[in-house]
Amino acid sequence: MAISPARTNRTTDPMDVPDVVVERLPLYVRVLASFEERGIEMVSSEQLGSQLHMTPAQIRKDLSYFGRFGKQGRGYNVKALALRLREILGLDRTWNACLVGVGRLGRAIISYPGFAPEGFKIVSAFDMNPAVVGTTVDGISVDAISEIKPVVERLGIAIGIVAVPATAAQQVIDCLVEAGIGAILNYAPISAHAPGKVKIKNIDPVMSLQSMTYYLKT
Amino acid sequence: MAISPARTNRTTDPMDVPDVVVERLPLYVRVLASFEERGIEMVSSEQLGSQLHMTPAQIRKDLSYFGRFGKQGRGYNVKALALRLREILGLDRTWNACLVGVGRLGRAIISYPGFAPEGFKIVSAFDMNPAVVGTTVDGISVDAISEIKPVVERLGIAIGIVAVPATAAQQVIDCLVEAGIGAILNYAPISAHAPGKVKIKNIDPVMSLQSMTYYLKT
Repeated sequence: MAISPARTNRTTDPMDVPDVVVERLPLYVRVLASFEERGIEMVSSEQLGSQLHMTPAQIRKDLSYFGRFGKQGRGYNVKALALRLREILGLDRTWNACLVGVGRLGRAIISYPGFAPEGFKIVSAFDMNPAVVGTTVDGISVDAISEIKPVVERLGIAIGIVAVPATAAQQVIDCLVEAGIGAILNYAPISAHAPGKVKIKNIDPVMSLQSMTYYLKT
Repeated sequence: MAISPARTNRTTDPMDVPDVVVERLPLYVRVLASFEERGIEMVSSEQLGSQLHMTPAQIRKDLSYFGRFGKQGRGYNVKALALRLREILGLDRTWNACLVGVGRLGRAIISYPGFAPEGFKIVSAFDMNPAVVGTTVDGISVDAISEIKPVVERLGIAIGIVAVPATAAQQVIDCLVEAGIGAILNYAPISAHAPGKVKIKNIDPVMSLQSMTYYLKT
């Protein structure tokens, strides 16, 4: 019995996929979810492309990093592709996160109801202000920043959310990296950096405004 | 003397450009700025594509909506393209914005130092809490929500930033639209809608987390 090379499920090394392609996957997941809600079973790269305003070739190229999904002439199975992309993105589990900086913004983030339904759970918070350390915010106890490493290890925290002032942000990010955090969501208004293996995303309201002004000026 | 049709500067109707293409333009502006900082005068669609991990064809297609920029075989003039894209996006001027919802998050937004350097100025704030109305936050006076329309008209405010709880968000957005606001940045955790002509962007930290988990799970 011969093993057909076409049937292998081998995909590209995760680290070899361009970041920008990975960043587009959650968009694909949402568009697929909307197709699924409408009871659509199969979609073509043309249909996906028309929703996302990308060329079908770009869609096929993006997906090709992760394996062979589509069938020539039949398109993609909506449910199977959505499920597989969620698996690929690691969205089929719960992730523990910690918050650093329990000021105005940090408190707003702790009370943000959008994280939990998507599997992101803030389980711990840190601050450098002695007046705040030892208090509890929305059920989350606030520890000193010096406690980051032991708490992160004890609670299996993989994600750090940074809501400290700009001047303190890089130092806090370094602490999180040192503690073994793998992904950082940075709300501080600096374009923060983290060493190669650690992923960082900056919440960037300015970029959102910058594409809307296109419509305002006309 | 014949008028060469190839020399016309006519571009597509602004409303005919797909939103997703417009959303990519600020990325182009940033990448071009980084080329400019490094003293690079000309870039090819291949170089832009390699920075953004997009195919050169996609780059050329995106830019083609706005005119003819590149020269066959020479690429794009970095400075000229950046300047033109900033003009196209309306980033060559200052925009007045108002904030609705002066709670934890709203106060954090008012004190966010990232807006002003990019030409976005919060000039007014609104709240429904009588204890907050009439006060001043970081130099911005807080008015009642019923004052939105006259204040927006008086101060020439084009952008509304929404930081109210999810349950109040849609109603506030409707108020802003009624007042003539053209673009809304929504921080409330709902996928808010606005009528066709009004643009709305939801700040979406979950989507940022969703692409980072890709690297965590490996």
